[in-house]
Formats: sequence, structure tokens, C-alpha cells
Amino acid sequence: MPIVDINCDMGESFGTYTLGRDTEILDYVTSANIACGFHAGDPATMRKTVKLAIQKNIGIGVHPGLPDLAGFGRREMNISPQEAYDLVVYQIGALSAFVKAEGGKIQHVKPHGALFNMAAKNAGLAEAIAEAVYKVDPELVFFGLAGSELVKAGHRLGLRTASEVFSDRTYQEDGSLTSRREPDALIKEHETAVGQVIRMVKEGTVTSQQGTDISIKADTVCIHGDGESALDFARYITSALKENGITIASIGSFLK
Amino acid sequence: MPIVDINCDMGESFGTYTLGRDTEILDYVTSANIACGFHAGDPATMRKTVKLAIQKNIGIGVHPGLPDLAGFGRREMNISPQEAYDLVVYQIGALSAFVKAEGGKIQHVKPHGALFNMAAKNAGLAEAIAEAVYKVDPELVFFGLAGSELVKAGHRLGLRTASEVFSDRTYQEDGSLTSRREPDALIKEHETAVGQVIRMVKEGTVTSQQGTDISIKADTVCIHGDGESALDFARYITSALKENGITIASIGSFLK
Amino acid sequence: MPIVDINCDMGESFGTYTLGRDTEILDYVTSANIACGFHAGDPATMRKTVKLAIQKNIGIGVHPGLPDLAGFGRREMNISPQEAYDLVVYQIGALSAFVKAEGGKIQHVKPHGALFNMAAKNAGLAEAIAEAVYKVDPELVFFGLAGSELVKAGHRLGLRTASEVFSDRTYQEDGSLTSRREPDALIKEHETAVGQVIRMVKEGTVTSQQGTDISIKADTVCIHGDGESALDFARYITSALKENGITIASIGSFLK
Amino acid sequence: MPIVDINCDMGESFGTYTLGRDTEILDYVTSANIACGFHAGDPATMRKTVKLAIQKNIGIGVHPGLPDLAGFGRREMNISPQEAYDLVVYQIGALSAFVKAEGGKIQHVKPHGALFNMAAKNAGLAEAIAEAVYKVDPELVFFGLAGSELVKAGHRLGLRTASEVFSDRTYQEDGSLTSRREPDALIKEHETAVGQVIRMVKEGTVTSQQGTDISIKADTVCIHGDGESALDFARYITSALKENGITIASIGSFLK
Repeated sequence: MPIVDINCDMGESFGTYTLGRDTEILDYVTSANIACGFHAGDPATMRKTVKLAIQKNIGIGVHPGLPDLAGFGRREMNISPQEAYDLVVYQIGALSAFVKAEGGKIQHVKPHGALFNMAAKNAGLAEAIAEAVYKVDPELVFFGLAGSELVKAGHRLGLRTASEVFSDRTYQEDGSLTSRREPDALIKEHETAVGQVIRMVKEGTVTSQQGTDISIKADTVCIHGDGESALDFARYITSALKENGITIASIGSFLK
Repeated sequence: MPIVDINCDMGESFGTYTLGRDTEILDYVTSANIACGFHAGDPATMRKTVKLAIQKNIGIGVHPGLPDLAGFGRREMNISPQEAYDLVVYQIGALSAFVKAEGGKIQHVKPHGALFNMAAKNAGLAEAIAEAVYKVDPELVFFGLAGSELVKAGHRLGLRTASEVFSDRTYQEDGSLTSRREPDALIKEHETAVGQVIRMVKEGTVTSQQGTDISIKADTVCIHGDGESALDFARYITSALKENGITIASIGSFLK
Repeated sequence: MPIVDINCDMGESFGTYTLGRDTEILDYVTSANIACGFHAGDPATMRKTVKLAIQKNIGIGVHPGLPDLAGFGRREMNISPQEAYDLVVYQIGALSAFVKAEGGKIQHVKPHGALFNMAAKNAGLAEAIAEAVYKVDPELVFFGLAGSELVKAGHRLGLRTASEVFSDRTYQEDGSLTSRREPDALIKEHETAVGQVIRMVKEGTVTSQQGTDISIKADTVCIHGDGESALDFARYITSALKENGITIASIGSFLK
Repeated sequence: MPIVDINCDMGESFGTYTLGRDTEILDYVTSANIACGFHAGDPATMRKTVKLAIQKNIGIGVHPGLPDLAGFGRREMNISPQEAYDLVVYQIGALSAFVKAEGGKIQHVKPHGALFNMAAKNAGLAEAIAEAVYKVDPELVFFGLAGSELVKAGHRLGLRTASEVFSDRTYQEDGSLTSRREPDALIKEHETAVGQVIRMVKEGTVTSQQGTDISIKADTVCIHGDGESALDFARYITSALKENGITIASIGSFLK
């Protein structure tokens, strides 16, 4: 039976600044990636978001980012694997304490933004991040871009590793995402986007921009929590997946 | 048999900046208060300091501070109890992850600088900090200035609570420390300082600046890890305490 | 002829976070207090806000705050006068460079939030802040709460000093604002609020919460740039002031 | 008559953390590059360093860096030209205010660390940084690695542009510095290092690691202000240059 997890970034408010529609989007996702104060988020926001996720019974994830609040963790920084290890350990710990205080349990770790993208291509960074997860808690599920160095590093260490796919991005023949700099990087029509996901989940296949079908593993789909149409799309993709016989469940409940 | 713990702040380096003689001072203390990146410290320094403390078998403590690196956490900030709770939970978590990754165990929590001083006098802050400790791990030892609101809050929650005394500070009749603004706040002669500690540990008494003897509980003594004479004093106080029949041991091993 | 300046805080966005309706509110104010990256704002926001203010011919002000982005500069911090001096000099400089690059001119300096409130009551801080302004540019207009230490310090140094009043706050017999902790601190009805301003500007008088009339100087009125009704109120107060024969003009154009 | 400027980074202390031997090294340099609080430095340090440089009559320079205190501005960050422009304008302004308050004058701008290195190779960044300098004050001297994009961008804008050389680094045939990752990147013997500088200044030539002589312009030499042998080397190079008939003077006094 086809099954998939839906994850979304959240807890990205900071101090007086509000971002994202966390409360509403939580009704459509099964896993929440919660910011830890480096690229976004702060202690109060972490506490509130963890509480909310526990109430709604959503899988709680650590979402560690680069130490770049001004750039929202989206600017690549030339950090060493050791630095990546240290900042991931730190952020897993910070979120874990809120989860423990609220009586919950961490499900997964998904690196954020530029950290995620750099590590997808850089084996040294990927290994360091996977090791950080493993040394703090080897039971945690580790998220990485399907086919990327992150997924390879997770497997090597024996972590339960989730392959993540994107509904609104196109793919290249080598399995990588089309660069956002290219005009055909984004899929704008909801129907096409969801159709791509359904095929990835059911058939393990996606059609690349080169026209060829390639294999892809789809354990979890990433959707967005802010922007005008985020809630609309969340509603649409969840009902479309269900109508197509796909079960939506937290990654921790089914990933081996 | 008289027994006391000796604690010292450490892990206060940041990035390219080095502070304190951690490696050497660790030979004289039984508990280490490790900075968590808010008032001092950073992920790499935390990892290294935790490793060192485990190697030397020192009691590991979380040393949460105000979010004020520029002021080293020494400037009072008008934070709410909820804000104090949140930043203590966060910092306990961050350090805990490094301790877990290195195979160790957290022993205690001691608030730093202005956070420690504000909470010593402010019951609301003290309660919030104690609750943060309790909710993350009720087994942790909680440090507070002897006789202060921190100690009272710890006791109320049922935390094992350590009363901390200072060797180089004089006391007022009401049990508070003489303000640093007063000319007689500091005890400069090592012999007088250590004599005061020996009496506090063995007799539970200290002579106030008003000339009267007052009761004081001395579970742990704070010494300094930086400055010219820090190592000399550390050497001197440890040997003097032993010569006077006082056992020096990690607080976690004897505090009830 | 009665005349008054209307000022508003702006440029308070940060990185990916947006705050305030700067573009729209600029149509109603004559002076803009632009955040400088300590309590809010960032280099890109400063550049854009300065550009906008120049285009709309608004008096440009430096709005220096405490180094507390997480607390939006609203949490009192126990800084020394020297620290206050340093952070005000720094922030005046930072904004000035953008103003120079865009071909404009700084008009005034208004401390933000807790820095403004602390200095209103603390002569040492007020003096240090006024001196910072004076040493960087003695031609700048200096804003302070009417009757406060800031205003006194500005006058002592020979700065052109603007007394600021609030439309939506009530006053005490001693000329201070009613604390926000009191139930009667805020004036919610737009008509009452504006009526208070009109009387302050035309008669130099306000009725205190104790029922007595007190003298007050009203060179500039502070209005808010965010929140639901900010634009409505801005529209209302500007037309009401004009209808009552009060000229609205940038402080720099009329203050002696 | 051969003439050269000697520059050194300084004002890199932060809060409680001290770095560099600024007071002593100032006796040997003619231009000081003062950190502005992004990669190092803070308002108090800036004020003190500016004061010191004015007292010793040293050319004062702005030393803007990436917003990365934890990494000391040495980790490359993928910032846009617009972001580079904004952070350079901001930092020039911040330092300028201290210089103005102390009655001095800014002489030059030299980007720091990774910002300097990235812009040396990236024309877009170099242009943005040069434009930031030009728009704030077109009279400022602009520093760049000899032969780099920074120097080209400075010339294009009509800024007085100083070509900087290094005494302790080896050069490649294309005029670039040998990467620090290569074993032959550094020149450790003081005599060889200074010999290279003398030849660069007098003959405009340096021998590359490929054995060929290449042309190089040497307006200013960078020396280090921290580390064990910094003062020794400073003393040595200044006396050696003088003995070889080279005048040492602030760049602003001779550069056209």
C-alpha cells in the first residue's frame, strides 16, 4: 500500500516578527520541521510550536540551519564538516529540551536551506551532519534530498533515512533538482505538481526535464507553510493523495 | 564528615577568542559550569569542554546566561519569568546534546552572571528557572546563592538544590553578599578567603560585615578560572581544605 | 501659529521578516525614525527606508536602540552611560552613511524603546546619549519625552531639542506617562486621543489622571506604523489637526 | 623615491574578549584597518582604537567584514553584490561616526577576510564594494589585493586605489596568492619575506612559485598584529625597509 509523509517547515517566527501560518498548516502535515534559533525561530517560538505539534499529534523534527538569521539560513557559508557537526548537535539538543519539557518525543532531523543544499552535494558535510544525529540519538529519522549525499551518509551510518521529494520542483536526468536559476525550475500548476508526487510515491518514478523517466524514492514530500496559496495547496495535495489511494502518515510510523 | 564541591565557570571562549585556563583549572575543581553560547561559549567550545570534563571525571553543569555576548551576560535585562524559563530550557538542551554525544551525563545547572543575581532576589525568575530545570530533568542538581530565592525555588519544586558560597566575597547580616560597589565587598588575602570557606563548611557560619555570626549552608564553593592568580588560588584552596579535614567531591555524589 | 511635527518609527523589518506599513504611513508623517540594526532593521531595510523618506521629503531620523533584536529593544538592560554613548554613536553613523549615499541629510535622533524610557528618567544615560549626538553632529535635532531627562540633557548641551508627546497615552500629575501596567494608561478612542494632542499643541496643557491641568511642550507627536488601525489613525489625526488650524511640518523646519 | 604604506588590522577585540596588541603595533604601521562589529570589534573597541590611531597620527581605515562574528569573517558566504554594498555602507558609517566624534578623518577602506578574498576574484562583488565606498565618500582610498578585481573596480570608479601586497605569502604566475592549502603558501623566514617586499616596492616585481618574475604594484604592505612574533616582525620590516631607502608613509599622503 502506497504511503507517504508530508513535512513542512515551521516555528520560523522570531521575537516580534511573525512568519508562517503554523497553526493552520499543521492540520495538513504529518511531520513538522521546527527551526532552532539559528536561521529562524527563538526559544519562545520553539516552546509554542512543540506544544502545538504535540497537541495535534504531528511528528516533531529538528530543523537545524546555518547561523545566519539575517539571511534566513539560505546563503551558503563555507563551514567545515566539524562546524556542521557542532551546530547540528547544538540545535538538536536545544529543541529536544523543549520536547522533553512538554512530554513529547523527537521524530526526525531535517537540515535547513543552504545547509541542506550544500550537504546534498558534499559528502563530508553530509557525513558530519548524519554523525551528529547518530551520536545524539541513533533512533532519529534522518531527512535528505532523494538520491543525495545526505541520504547516502544516513544509510552508511545505519540511520533510518527518509528520501524527500518536492512537489513544486522539476528534476534533472541525474536526479538532482533543476536549479532555481533555470526558467523551468518550478511547477506552478497544482495539478501537475500533485500528479508528479502521486507518480513518485506509487511508481517510484519521475520524468526529468530531459524527457527520460528516472527512479526516485519518495518517503516524504515537502510543502510550504507561508505564502498566499500555502494552505490551499496543502488542502489540495492531501485530498488528492488520499483520493489516489495513498496513505498519509508520520514518517516515524512506517519508515524502516 | 565535612564535604564540599568546588565549581568553576568554563567553556567561555568564543570563535577566535580564547578565555580562561580551562584545562589547568579542571585539575582543581569537582564541578564545571559550561557556557552555552548565550553570554559566552559556542558549539565547538562546548564540545571540547564537555570532552575535557568527561576525561577528567568532573561533574558537568549547564551554565545558562542572558542573550548578551557583548556584555558577557553581566548586564541585568528586564526579562519575564517566561523568557527566563525559555532560555534556560534551550541552553540545558544545547549542552545536553554534546554531553550525550560524548557519552557523559549532566550533573547540575547554575545560572550565570546577571541571570543568577536577578533570580537570587526575584522569586518569579527563580521559580521559572527552577521549573525549566525540573521539566527537562528533575534529577539535575540546581545551584543557587546560599539563602537566595533560587535555593528556595529549588526546594519548593523538590530539586536537589546546592547552596553556593563565595570565598572572596564578604557577607551582610541578612545573608546577602556585600555589593561590589562597597569598598569591603572583596576579600583579597587568600588566607582570609579560605578561612571563611573552611568555617562555612565545618560550622555553617560566617561573620557578617556587621560583626555578627550568621548561619550559612555551604554545599559548593565558586572559584574563578581566569585572571592572573586563578590557578594559584585554586591550588591553595584545595590543599587548605584537605588539610583541614574537608573532603572535596562532586556535588552530585553527596548532595541529598 | 500652532505647528507640530508628526513622527513614526519605521524601517523595522529584518531579513525575511516584514514589519510595519512604511510606504503608506509615510504619507501622513513629517519625520521618520529609522531603526539601525540593533533592536530592528538591517542594512538593506535602512537603505530602502532612507530612499523612500528622501523621495517623500520626510525628515530622516536615527532611531538607535539597545542591542536586543530578540526583545525588539523593549527590555531594559543595565548599560552604563559609556555603553549608551557608544551604541548611539555607532547607530547614528550607520544610518548616516546610507543617507549620504542616497544624497540626503539626517534631521534628528530619537532613542528607541527601553533606551528612550530608561534615559527619560536617568540623567546619566540621557547626558551620554545627548553627548553622542552632539559629538557626531551638533546640528541634529534631539528627541525626548516632554519634560524628561533627555530633554534637559539636550538643552544643557545646546542641541535643538524636541519635546515629544503621545496621543494615545495618559499623563500623571508630575508630567510622566501613566505606566502601561495601569488600566488607564491608554486612550483608545481616536477622538479623545486627538483632542488631547490638539490641546497640548495649542494650549501647552494636558489634564492629568489626577484631574489637574499640567503644562506640557508638544513639538512632535508620535504615532504608530503597525497594527490594524495605524493607517486609519494617521489619516484621522492629520486631518483633525489641520482642521483645528494646526500646521504639520518636519521638526527641522521650525524648531529653534 | 620608493615609498610604501604599512597597514595592519586592529580593533578586533569584542566585549570581554581581547585580541591583538594594538597599542604596540601602532608604533610600526602607517595605516590601521579598524573592525566595525560584524566580523570583530564592538562600539567601545572602535571608539578606543580610533582615539589611539588619532593620537599616534596613523591613517584610519574602515575594515568591513561579513556578518559572522563566530567565524571571524573568514568563512565565505554566498552574499549578493547588493548585500555586499549594504554591509559596507553600514560599516563605513559606523566607524565614521566615531572618527568624527573624536575629531579625526577616515583615510581608507579595506574589506576583511572572506569578503576581501571573494571580491578579489568576483567582479560583481568588487564593483558593489567599490561603489559603496564611492557613494559614501569618493575621497576615500580603496584597498585591494594587487592585480585583483577589487583594484580594477576601484580604478573604474575613479577611486584612489591602493594595491596591497603580502610579505609572508608566495605568489603564482598569474599574480594571485598561493592558496593557503598549498605547502608553499607561506614565507616563514623574516629575511625572505622582507626581501620580497623590498623588491616589490623598488622594482615592482616578484618571483612567482613557477620561477618566473611577474609585475606587481606595491602601494601598501599588510602585516599582522597578533601572534607571538607580530611585534618582532613589525620592528624588523620597518627598519629593513628604511635601511633599503624606502620611505614608509600613510597611503593617503602619497597615493594618486
